[in-house]
Amino acid sequence: MFTYKTSIRLHHTDAAGLIFFANQLVLAHDAYESLLKKMGFNYENHLLKGKYLLPIVHVESDYKRPLFVGDEISIRVKVARIGTTSFTLEYQFYKKQKLLVGTVQTVHVLIEKKSKKKCPLSKALRSSLERISD
Amino acid sequence: MFTYKTSIRLHHTDAAGLIFFANQLVLAHDAYESLLKKMGFNYENHLLKGKYLLPIVHVESDYKRPLFVGDEISIRVKVARIGTTSFTLEYQFYKKQKLLVGTVQTVHVLIEKKSKKKCPLSKALRSSLERISD
Amino acid sequence: MFTYKTSIRLHHTDAAGLIFFANQLVLAHDAYESLLKKMGFNYENHLLKGKYLLPIVHVESDYKRPLFVGDEISIRVKVARIGTTSFTLEYQFYKKQKLLVGTVQTVHVLIEKKSKKKCPLSKALRSSLERISD
Amino acid sequence: MFTYKTSIRLHHTDAAGLIFFANQLVLAHDAYESLLKKMGFNYENHLLKGKYLLPIVHVESDYKRPLFVGDEISIRVKVARIGTTSFTLEYQFYKKQKLLVGTVQTVHVLIEKKSKKKCPLSKALRSSLERISD
Repeated sequence: MFTYKTSIRLHHTDAAGLIFFANQLVLAHDAYESLLKKMGFNYENHLLKGKYLLPIVHVESDYKRPLFVGDEISIRVKVARIGTTSFTLEYQFYKKQKLLVGTVQTVHVLIEKKSKKKCPLSKALRSSLERISD
Repeated sequence: MFTYKTSIRLHHTDAAGLIFFANQLVLAHDAYESLLKKMGFNYENHLLKGKYLLPIVHVESDYKRPLFVGDEISIRVKVARIGTTSFTLEYQFYKKQKLLVGTVQTVHVLIEKKSKKKCPLSKALRSSLERISD
Repeated sequence: MFTYKTSIRLHHTDAAGLIFFANQLVLAHDAYESLLKKMGFNYENHLLKGKYLLPIVHVESDYKRPLFVGDEISIRVKVARIGTTSFTLEYQFYKKQKLLVGTVQTVHVLIEKKSKKKCPLSKALRSSLERISD
Repeated sequence: MFTYKTSIRLHHTDAAGLIFFANQLVLAHDAYESLLKKMGFNYENHLLKGKYLLPIVHVESDYKRPLFVGDEISIRVKVARIGTTSFTLEYQFYKKQKLLVGTVQTVHVLIEKKSKKKCPLSKALRSSLERISD
């Protein structure tokens, strides 16, 4: 499991006084980028300039408790599923380490840029994901 | 059915060259705000200063085709479900009127501000939603 | 002069109840993109895939009155200055057509992508800008 | 001087491949929120629920070098000016500790919520700001 710590910024909130719902997904992606970095992937070189893309094809997000500006949160990222050409990550948002405030799921597919076709996950990517699942 | 027309702005995109996934949800909410206005609800007066909240408790988003800066899109909003204390909206994103590029679902719950408890949807809200479902 | 009409969305606001200051600049850029389109420039083809870039090198933004979710605004865009390699746009934000709520200035420089050097504005761009200044 | 370290996320960038200009201001505000916290101010309690507001009335932002996704940056915050009812912060953005990539200035005014009038900065705020200027 990978844990990413951050805090809720004013720009994450809206006039209702709490985090704007779509920003829970923005924060999940921040955690994902930190995870990729820890796995040794450089976003700029591997994902933007490389031969492959890892687009998100499906997301889900649940909201259990409100988040306010200044709240310190921990996002725990788990690999929920490793398929042939795709994988699913699950993010649990905790306030004060213990209080589950929300969850996110993102499904990523490996696409070859030229052909725009789905590709089997490479051994390197698969074993990196397996290491996190442990 | 309610249709909201808009276009993809540079700030919706990211360095991968297309719309950042979470912005499909931001655009869905823009459509929702326009729908509420058409239904006669003023966001500021009814939702921020009123007795009730309509928080989103669950969202799903699917990505079928890429969206680029400048793309003109139509978002068709349907009422997918009207429950006792909640309702579900479905948003279909079309490029050039015909090409389905993605879908979003948002589940909204009516909460009384003071008690923080779920409330049955008012007749006014229910009939407004029913009118859109037709 | 070019006028762009839009409205303040929930995601433009923050927990202080009004528009988050940086979003006045986001809205100014939305107006700029509409202006470019009206001038016949396609953002995707001309600015992202073309030989030149038009990066913003300086901005200023002033806040005179608050903007709330749902507010209908008009952004009037003027060409404040046309230089040799750069131009300056000025955006005036009006609420209810009359009430000046804020202003933005953006300075854009023409850069050749390969050499990364400043270039003189093309005649086409210059005359398009002049047409708007009238 | 106060230094805030962060990194450029995918959602900060746009289809031109670099940071979207308005996000330099978003990042400056992130630094400001961290500074306030270090000064002992709780955003939620002091700024949103308190008697006073500290709205930004003017900003400037300069862009010297591009920032890409994954770039690690340091934002050095200085108090540029302490006036009677306002103060000015200056933010210098550095890449790899040494390379100045951009600067931001924000002017904040103290307003009493009820009367909506400017107020003299409190001694506590003034001395907190002076401590940072040293």
